[in-house]
Amino acid sequence: MIHGNERMHFSSDYMEGAHPLILKRLFETNMEKTSGYGTDEFSKEAGNKIRAACNAPEADVFFLTGGTQTNATVIDALLHTYQGVVAADTGHISLHEAGAIEAGGHKVLTLPHRDGKIAAEDVSRFLRDFWEDENHEHMVMPGMVYISQPTEYGTLYSLKELSELSEICRTNHIPLYLDGARLAYALAAPENDVTLPDLAALCDVFYIGGTKCGALFGEAVVIPRHGLIPHFMTIIKQHGALLAKGRIAGVQFDTLFTDRLYEEIGKPAVEAANAVRKALKEKGYRLVFPNPTNQVFVLLEKEQAARLSEQIEMGFWEYTDDTHMIMRIALSWAVEPDEVKRLIECL
Amino acid sequence: MIHGNERMHFSSDYMEGAHPLILKRLFETNMEKTSGYGTDEFSKEAGNKIRAACNAPEADVFFLTGGTQTNATVIDALLHTYQGVVAADTGHISLHEAGAIEAGGHKVLTLPHRDGKIAAEDVSRFLRDFWEDENHEHMVMPGMVYISQPTEYGTLYSLKELSELSEICRTNHIPLYLDGARLAYALAAPENDVTLPDLAALCDVFYIGGTKCGALFGEAVVIPRHGLIPHFMTIIKQHGALLAKGRIAGVQFDTLFTDRLYEEIGKPAVEAANAVRKALKEKGYRLVFPNPTNQVFVLLEKEQAARLSEQIEMGFWEYTDDTHMIMRIALSWAVEPDEVKRLIECL
Amino acid sequence: MIHGNERMHFSSDYMEGAHPLILKRLFETNMEKTSGYGTDEFSKEAGNKIRAACNAPEADVFFLTGGTQTNATVIDALLHTYQGVVAADTGHISLHEAGAIEAGGHKVLTLPHRDGKIAAEDVSRFLRDFWEDENHEHMVMPGMVYISQPTEYGTLYSLKELSELSEICRTNHIPLYLDGARLAYALAAPENDVTLPDLAALCDVFYIGGTKCGALFGEAVVIPRHGLIPHFMTIIKQHGALLAKGRIAGVQFDTLFTDRLYEEIGKPAVEAANAVRKALKEKGYRLVFPNPTNQVFVLLEKEQAARLSEQIEMGFWEYTDDTHMIMRIALSWAVEPDEVKRLIECL
Amino acid sequence: MIHGNERMHFSSDYMEGAHPLILKRLFETNMEKTSGYGTDEFSKEAGNKIRAACNAPEADVFFLTGGTQTNATVIDALLHTYQGVVAADTGHISLHEAGAIEAGGHKVLTLPHRDGKIAAEDVSRFLRDFWEDENHEHMVMPGMVYISQPTEYGTLYSLKELSELSEICRTNHIPLYLDGARLAYALAAPENDVTLPDLAALCDVFYIGGTKCGALFGEAVVIPRHGLIPHFMTIIKQHGALLAKGRIAGVQFDTLFTDRLYEEIGKPAVEAANAVRKALKEKGYRLVFPNPTNQVFVLLEKEQAARLSEQIEMGFWEYTDDTHMIMRIALSWAVEPDEVKRLIECL
Repeated sequence: MIHGNERMHFSSDYMEGAHPLILKRLFETNMEKTSGYGTDEFSKEAGNKIRAACNAPEADVFFLTGGTQTNATVIDALLHTYQGVVAADTGHISLHEAGAIEAGGHKVLTLPHRDGKIAAEDVSRFLRDFWEDENHEHMVMPGMVYISQPTEYGTLYSLKELSELSEICRTNHIPLYLDGARLAYALAAPENDVTLPDLAALCDVFYIGGTKCGALFGEAVVIPRHGLIPHFMTIIKQHGALLAKGRIAGVQFDTLFTDRLYEEIGKPAVEAANAVRKALKEKGYRLVFPNPTNQVFVLLEKEQAARLSEQIEMGFWEYTDDTHMIMRIALSWAVEPDEVKRLIECL
Repeated sequence: MIHGNERMHFSSDYMEGAHPLILKRLFETNMEKTSGYGTDEFSKEAGNKIRAACNAPEADVFFLTGGTQTNATVIDALLHTYQGVVAADTGHISLHEAGAIEAGGHKVLTLPHRDGKIAAEDVSRFLRDFWEDENHEHMVMPGMVYISQPTEYGTLYSLKELSELSEICRTNHIPLYLDGARLAYALAAPENDVTLPDLAALCDVFYIGGTKCGALFGEAVVIPRHGLIPHFMTIIKQHGALLAKGRIAGVQFDTLFTDRLYEEIGKPAVEAANAVRKALKEKGYRLVFPNPTNQVFVLLEKEQAARLSEQIEMGFWEYTDDTHMIMRIALSWAVEPDEVKRLIECL
Repeated sequence: MIHGNERMHFSSDYMEGAHPLILKRLFETNMEKTSGYGTDEFSKEAGNKIRAACNAPEADVFFLTGGTQTNATVIDALLHTYQGVVAADTGHISLHEAGAIEAGGHKVLTLPHRDGKIAAEDVSRFLRDFWEDENHEHMVMPGMVYISQPTEYGTLYSLKELSELSEICRTNHIPLYLDGARLAYALAAPENDVTLPDLAALCDVFYIGGTKCGALFGEAVVIPRHGLIPHFMTIIKQHGALLAKGRIAGVQFDTLFTDRLYEEIGKPAVEAANAVRKALKEKGYRLVFPNPTNQVFVLLEKEQAARLSEQIEMGFWEYTDDTHMIMRIALSWAVEPDEVKRLIECL
Repeated sequence: MIHGNERMHFSSDYMEGAHPLILKRLFETNMEKTSGYGTDEFSKEAGNKIRAACNAPEADVFFLTGGTQTNATVIDALLHTYQGVVAADTGHISLHEAGAIEAGGHKVLTLPHRDGKIAAEDVSRFLRDFWEDENHEHMVMPGMVYISQPTEYGTLYSLKELSELSEICRTNHIPLYLDGARLAYALAAPENDVTLPDLAALCDVFYIGGTKCGALFGEAVVIPRHGLIPHFMTIIKQHGALLAKGRIAGVQFDTLFTDRLYEEIGKPAVEAANAVRKALKEKGYRLVFPNPTNQVFVLLEKEQAARLSEQIEMGFWEYTDDTHMIMRIALSWAVEPDEVKRLIECL
């Protein structure tokens, strides 16, 4: 697809359509008639496969269309009206969801991040301080914890870190929710030691991202303990998140969870990212937010950024001062070796 | 697809996937890289074609994923916090959106329907009564009018009726919003005299339904007057309705608005519905909600319904008394002549 | 206070300040220092007296400032996000609270009233129809029942009617909430057979109205079963309904529940209303919404209304047609015999 | 009121009832009949006096009951659904309103405080960064600025600081809103150089606090530019903030704005606070949040705090580490010289 003189595009990891196997399966099943709203056989089968992959035979599985929508719906379902959600100050819900959580009536209670993550001890202290504060009845009660894996910085919670967070949440009787918008890229990273069954064992709710991991769209919400959220289908509907043709999400996740595709799909991206990181270092660039997944963050002078952007479309991340900025190079499941080679040559 | 002994499925008009031309185009464009959130070339091209079809060169066009979501987002965008939306008591937003409008903080102010429609004079009287009520500062101010075309009963507003409603709204300085979830079936009905350009001329906002009219999913919001809703993209995002891969909706609507596909796609369904209605009448069934579009409503005794349901899956509509019920037979764009023939034989 | 030639004012029952005993007690306690937010001794003592009067020793009692605020806060506390509140179409929350319930995200599910009341059988049928509807997952789930005593038409639920409603609610596991904005006028009516202990036994939450029953402001929310609404103080705060100087409400309700003042305070108003009703009938006026409490509703020709209004300020209720309207004459706890006499003379 | 051996209470500045002149006036006017909802003559007269005091003849003036309620109502009225409010991280709306702003759907966008204040340059940079961020359409748009005078730390904006903030807001076309819950204590401070007319000239909306400044309850919202918030009465009603007996607030503010009472009422408190601060310093205590108004903040060891608390009830502010805490001594308008003397002796 990439020709020699064309500008290359790496501004995000959702620039292509879907994995070819998904399109093929949509094509094959297109004229079958099914019932709506996720009650079809494809969705059921996808749910079964996800339950199996997560080793969570009792789990409830629902398919929504996008990440912000999924976060807003799940968080609204888990919280009482007077509760807020604890998250890193760099969390997607804190910054880049246009106030969707607040539109549902809930405050995002931010903690300072550490490499995009929140530490169990910080959560623990925050909860203790809240309950010890004599004015806490006038404050927003922390009602759940939100994390993302990989984080917005591409970093990963280790199994130890996730276990500690899970324990803090359970000790405090509040649910732990994990946003897996890019989960395939975590699962594909050699450094990762958190499996799908680990997520099911340690989280109260999590979602397996499709949109950024090879689907046309779609996120699979997994609730390991059956019945944790009563009437969740109605809650989904109320949030405008219920697909009439639920089968379109079902077919996609059925495909992603056939022959371990979801656990393999991120590998080319992670390998490419590692190669790009290596090349950047060798060429003297300064990497920021070092991470083992598919997003590469590099600090550039504005002029440098302008020059590189002539050949490489990168994603703007943030200005660090008047003359420097952080740019993101995102590698997707669809990345091709030639593309990586040319990208590295252009750096 | 339908074999002789199989049960036939007509419970809704979104039981199949997408029109083959849509799938084909998704397939062809799959590996092209595009920017996200509807800023891609496919979405732009789809917007251009829709503007042309609507004879509304200045219109803003946005693509969302489903009907409830679209209604909640548009209504929230058009109303002030202290305003409500006027709708028929049979309107989709009144009954079957799980409170999505109220979740956005707005009351649905219902008027008694007439064949699923609201009459301009009823709206006019309602508005006058509100403003003349000495207590109106303690009441929910009517801030817009919601209608659907076809209505939930499959009926159609005539051009005259729509013009009258439009005039009432403009006189009262409140927007008129039209829900076109099944708009293709209106456009395909010989009785229909309301064109896309009419909608653009008479409505302040309307949406062209994709989900029920041949797309995998997707609704195209048309705002004829450019800039009527500032920052609508952020509003869409906040409602969890912004597709990351906006191109997937763009490609679909680009296809639907190529070679007048959208205006043709509903014809087989409407013709089939007319044939089914004719057959039902001849066989002595009682039709209810007579309408010229793709949904057939029939009054059945419970036993009769049970017997027919062995061969024909219909949609439950409502009980009329302890022994009778209304069932819906929905014909979709994908209906085949053989299927209709067999359906009629089974009645 | 009323002089011979002055226009008389009966447009509402909250035209005066507070009962003299309340003002006296506010005066006496004014410079005592207390803690805030209802944790003071006056509020505790008022709570004790209310618990005693209601024969509800375990009840939680909270003081809020006004009726709309109280309804919005209690209803939001009792409902899940996906639930609505069942009410008469004439209910205060349905019509005259400017959408406060919807602003909290909840639909008001209206039933046709019968003399301002809803019948147990209508509620029962509504609940059954909901759960039997095959589409109910797409609809707003009825999550509680709201009634008012007296109703907006001044009518009263009998003990039998209230018991039936209570039973329906308990059978369906949804709370029954009673709005007692004018409860003193119910308790003062000879026809009334529902006592405060009955309310505590049959309702899950109810409020004892102060604003319209002799206080400067204030409503006492009674939750007979302790702990039914966890963290209600925070919920009140979040709704902007937590008085910093909670003692001001506490002192008022302490006074109202000393020496049975609350149960006596409405008697002059009810007696006056009965006298006015008798006079109106004798003079050939047509009474509407016949009721045994403090509000008198009379049907008038527009000209007649204009003429009477020169001497008597009445409350506008509604137009019944182009030439007729219903006006309300509201008698308050502060009504004086001379005033009633002069009012009757003017009719 | 204070006897030699009694524990003294300084945990807040709303521990007493109302200024005697207010109670007297409530007593005198108690049996006059007035219309409701703030349409009475007392409220009109109070509005006139406030307009005069503010040199804002066109201002709209409304009376609400409490601070959190007022903030939630005004902020909801000023913002579009997709906008948030910029505030100091120490702002009352950020921390101590139980999520009332988020319950209305809006994010509080916090800036680091400087002595409880936000600096114009910080606001300016925040706004510029937002609009320059390429992802800003996915973020919460800053739609207004919230400040408090005095701040939560008792500090004051100077006229210069307020003018700079005002200019930034006007340049950016977003309103500046000032929370004057304790405004009387600002006006009473010798260091203060911001007058009521300055507030009216520089703010788009502000409120004059009654609850903490000598009233039983009540806050006066001033909107210098008439008509800035259309239908504000309905918005107030929808927020449960509309007093049926609006006259009770009207009478209080009429009294507070007669003979400059509001501008004098805070003086004893500020003088007492200065005396207490002087004494604390002399005795070697460490003052924190130095400020010129009625709240004194002192750093104490836990044991020291426990010992002092036997004689002096102070307000808990926060723990600074495991062995230290900040306590607040709040002096109110009602403070008496003997009380201050005894307080100082106890330190």
